Amino acid sequence: MPAGATSHDLFRALLRLWPSLLAFLGSFVAILIMWINHHGLFRLIHKTDSPFLFANGFMLLMVTFVPFPTAVLAEYLGRPGERAAAAFYIGTFVITSIAFNVFWLTTTKRGLLKRTVPDSVVLRIRNAYRFGLVVYAASTLLALWNASIGLAACLSLWIYWSVLAYQAER
Amino acid sequence: MPAGATSHDLFRALLRLWPSLLAFLGSFVAILIMWINHHGLFRLIHKTDSPFLFANGFMLLMVTFVPFPTAVLAEYLGRPGERAAAAFYIGTFVITSIAFNVFWLTTTKRGLLKRTVPDSVVLRIRNAYRFGLVVYAASTLLALWNASIGLAACLSLWIYWSVLAYQAER
Amino acid sequence: MPAGATSHDLFRALLRLWPSLLAFLGSFVAILIMWINHHGLFRLIHKTDSPFLFANGFMLLMVTFVPFPTAVLAEYLGRPGERAAAAFYIGTFVITSIAFNVFWLTTTKRGLLKRTVPDSVVLRIRNAYRFGLVVYAASTLLALWNASIGLAACLSLWIYWSVLAYQAER
Amino acid sequence: MPAGATSHDLFRALLRLWPSLLAFLGSFVAILIMWINHHGLFRLIHKTDSPFLFANGFMLLMVTFVPFPTAVLAEYLGRPGERAAAAFYIGTFVITSIAFNVFWLTTTKRGLLKRTVPDSVVLRIRNAYRFGLVVYAASTLLALWNASIGLAACLSLWIYWSVLAYQAER
Repeated sequence: MPAGATSHDLFRALLRLWPSLLAFLGSFVAILIMWINHHGLFRLIHKTDSPFLFANGFMLLMVTFVPFPTAVLAEYLGRPGERAAAAFYIGTFVITSIAFNVFWLTTTKRGLLKRTVPDSVVLRIRNAYRFGLVVYAASTLLALWNASIGLAACLSLWIYWSVLAYQAER
Repeated sequence: MPAGATSHDLFRALLRLWPSLLAFLGSFVAILIMWINHHGLFRLIHKTDSPFLFANGFMLLMVTFVPFPTAVLAEYLGRPGERAAAAFYIGTFVITSIAFNVFWLTTTKRGLLKRTVPDSVVLRIRNAYRFGLVVYAASTLLALWNASIGLAACLSLWIYWSVLAYQAER
Repeated sequence: MPAGATSHDLFRALLRLWPSLLAFLGSFVAILIMWINHHGLFRLIHKTDSPFLFANGFMLLMVTFVPFPTAVLAEYLGRPGERAAAAFYIGTFVITSIAFNVFWLTTTKRGLLKRTVPDSVVLRIRNAYRFGLVVYAASTLLALWNASIGLAACLSLWIYWSVLAYQAER
Repeated sequence: MPAGATSHDLFRALLRLWPSLLAFLGSFVAILIMWINHHGLFRLIHKTDSPFLFANGFMLLMVTFVPFPTAVLAEYLGRPGERAAAAFYIGTFVITSIAFNVFWLTTTKRGLLKRTVPDSVVLRIRNAYRFGLVVYAASTLLALWNASIGLAACLSLWIYWSVLAYQAER
């Protein structure tokens, strides 16, 4: 911005930054949901071992990667390349979802859970993660055809999960 | 700076960086006050749940956002766009203040406080947060009219809070 | 990328970023292995003192340095300077390995271990760290002659360690 | 570097980065010493209050600031502006030293120490911090006259402290 920019110019310049703000917000919310999820999983765990730490590291890798596809999406949304950007963004969550599935398999198969965790909870989480993986994969394919529809499918999954998390606590 | 810059040139160049130093200091102090506040709140809390973690995440989102409006303010202070920059800066604290209010409502309505926290403390914090929200909103409007007066109103709120925090400990 | 880039262009641009993705993945995995190792060492420790904190700081210094040689390697792999880049990359792990050796010597010589740690474990870790140092040094020399062979030697050490860590837990 | 750079070119380019490496190392060591110091102080503390948290925040502010003057020093060392750069660098530790003095005064005057901490330790730390402040201030003035001598005075203080920390543990 030139040094003589008025308050009006600055407000307009800030408003034009909405894609970056959206990317910041999107990264934050996606990472927050993963963190709360992660925090919830750790409450169920009794002990850890090296395979567990590698599986946990794989999840953390994906969490730290999220800001990059989010920035790509923010830059291309509403422009010709938006389908590739949306597919890259949602595709990241396909891999993140695989990481959560691997983590849960590692944790349950190696007997790292507290004894007080009932089998029904183990099954419910396993199914929720498998369901998430399928929805993310389908949303990625949808995004290749139409970016907005793919993103809407992805977003509705997040809202569904947040509502589930709220209800579980009541 | 050219390679042949003398010590005198470098001192002058460093002095010209004062807006960036101010932004660094301003971000740090604002985040420090929020952190001490946050730390104080966590001492009163007995247990957590998912809605609490989302409310907490909203607060953290605002804390991580603070450096951006601070940098904008540092760049535009004393230049034509300063009213927009100051309003954007203080406006960030309006939303931060909403986050603290939401956090406190979530915590108290869901019974997450320790039993030993008296109702008078719950009320005092609730009123302080509502008061802060009103002062920030008024300061934002003032800044749109005159940047310096808006910022002075905002700063006086911080000094007031710091003094309160000091006195509460005596 | 120009504003009119299509989805096809964007996909190709993202694919061309593979060296950066490789660098990100490489840094993450290298730091993850060090972290799991570090975590394992801390389980054996009973108390700390200042020399221990300095030795620990030396290890952390090397961990935070890893992303730089990784980025250099990612940029030069497959180009004329790849031998220097690979030697710089693996050479960083020579120094990291020295840091781990110094850490273990400090910890054992100053009697900071838990009494329940058998001498056989102390010896086994000491030998593993000395072995790692020798392999890294040899891999660095190999990389100066042929980058791919040096990196393959380094990678096989990591796979060997990961398998060892898995087996130790069974 | 051009795409055709050979391994020889890359090695020379990496060697030319020594000021940045020095800055990285210098920041790390300075922050490590402060951290170990800080860690040692926290072992003596029984409880905290708001003034303590503000004093602690002032220390943390200075710790996070260190990388900037270090980068300036790394850029200007051996060039005409080196005296200003060295004075700015050491001057940062004058303020850091004030922060440590304020922290210790706050902690001791407000009775936040464990009862088991003898008065002799309180006095010894107070005197060490006052001594450090005087040496840093003198080194800053020396640096304005001759950068190398000022930095040597500063460095000898660090070595002295590290040796002291080692001896204290024996």
